[in-house]
Amino acid sequence: MRIGELSTRTAVPVPTIKYYLREGLLPAGERTSPNQAQYGDAHVRRLKLVRALLDVGKLSVAATREVLASVDSPDSTLHHTLGTAQIAITPPVTPDPDSPAWQQAYERSEAVIARRGWRLEPGNPARDLLTQLVLTYHDLGEGDMLCVLDEYAAAAERIAAADIAAIGTRAEVDSKVEGAVLGTVLGDTLIAALRRLAQEDASARTFGPVTGRTASTAKPAEAPTGEPAPAG
Amino acid sequence: MRIGELSTRTAVPVPTIKYYLREGLLPAGERTSPNQAQYGDAHVRRLKLVRALLDVGKLSVAATREVLASVDSPDSTLHHTLGTAQIAITPPVTPDPDSPAWQQAYERSEAVIARRGWRLEPGNPARDLLTQLVLTYHDLGEGDMLCVLDEYAAAAERIAAADIAAIGTRAEVDSKVEGAVLGTVLGDTLIAALRRLAQEDASARTFGPVTGRTASTAKPAEAPTGEPAPAG
Repeated sequence: MRIGELSTRTAVPVPTIKYYLREGLLPAGERTSPNQAQYGDAHVRRLKLVRALLDVGKLSVAATREVLASVDSPDSTLHHTLGTAQIAITPPVTPDPDSPAWQQAYERSEAVIARRGWRLEPGNPARDLLTQLVLTYHDLGEGDMLCVLDEYAAAAERIAAADIAAIGTRAEVDSKVEGAVLGTVLGDTLIAALRRLAQEDASARTFGPVTGRTASTAKPAEAPTGEPAPAG
Repeated sequence: MRIGELSTRTAVPVPTIKYYLREGLLPAGERTSPNQAQYGDAHVRRLKLVRALLDVGKLSVAATREVLASVDSPDSTLHHTLGTAQIAITPPVTPDPDSPAWQQAYERSEAVIARRGWRLEPGNPARDLLTQLVLTYHDLGEGDMLCVLDEYAAAAERIAAADIAAIGTRAEVDSKVEGAVLGTVLGDTLIAALRRLAQEDASARTFGPVTGRTASTAKPAEAPTGEPAPAG
């Protein structure tokens, strides 16, 4: 198909597609004349992936390029390829190992990891990110809210097990890596959305206007009160 | 203290503080002369909260203003105040209820909510966000990765229970709301960091270079192999 049809099928404007081509986020089409190129289904798919990483994942163009490189050049093992992709989609943090506050936050983070029994290589950027967040809670005088850390870690373990199982159901390596990248980027927001819904339910049960647990099984507000609902 | 000391104590430059004052993110200091004002510890605390919402939570100035308004004017009930704050910190989504694809994604989302037994009011923006994400997975041809949805929801419920319990330990309403806002905003990233660490562990066990489950209980690479570790 020509670039115009690629644009129609993906709802991405032609100038944006040309920008992605220049930035190397999209491979060049097959040139059919000096001013024309043909694009295929692989371009449609890649364009959607690029949009998801930029728009939903809020990745930079440079980070997106790195992620795509890891999708395109699967490494020695799937585990290693997933690691490369993960590094690209994790916000970088500059560690400050000489500061006592950083040291303390680092030790607290490592203790959580140790209690879960996770075995990690040194290169995972999420380790510094975790330390940075623990430090931020403390710096804001919100250190007491970190009482949730071990519960979060247990929940994260459950999430990760589901993630790895989902990737395992796919047949091809590049499709596994693509699924892992999208699942991680989109999944963060999916979990955030579900967390807010679960919080509303938990908050209503704990702090709701109607007192106590009884409220949690009451009928919704729009239902007629005291009257049995009309049978279907 | 003067604005210079406020700047030193919070590491926020004076021009930035003045910008926050103009934008209503920080209450005015007590005027001591036409060109001078005094600031107190409440300003230090508020400034840190503003920075956390903008820098860590990536909220817009307008969204930050809304969150602060809900922190400052606790509503009729704590549950309702938390709801107002939550609306401000959830990325808005424009629903498209007339499209069949949206309808389908909506039904899938509601089914997950129903299976957890969550009782929700109509106003929670996370509901549209959830639908939008389900739609995005499908649109990208990654619908099979949504097999994780119920596991995510179960994990989110565990996270939310810990969140509400942590808020419950605080004494004052405004400190509860502040804790809830920061805990939700920072917590999203905290969970993302822990998820990546848990993924590395799960991936190593499943796809790691050493074959099979045995690898998961093997000693770390730096340990001497085949030799018993020297006793303490």
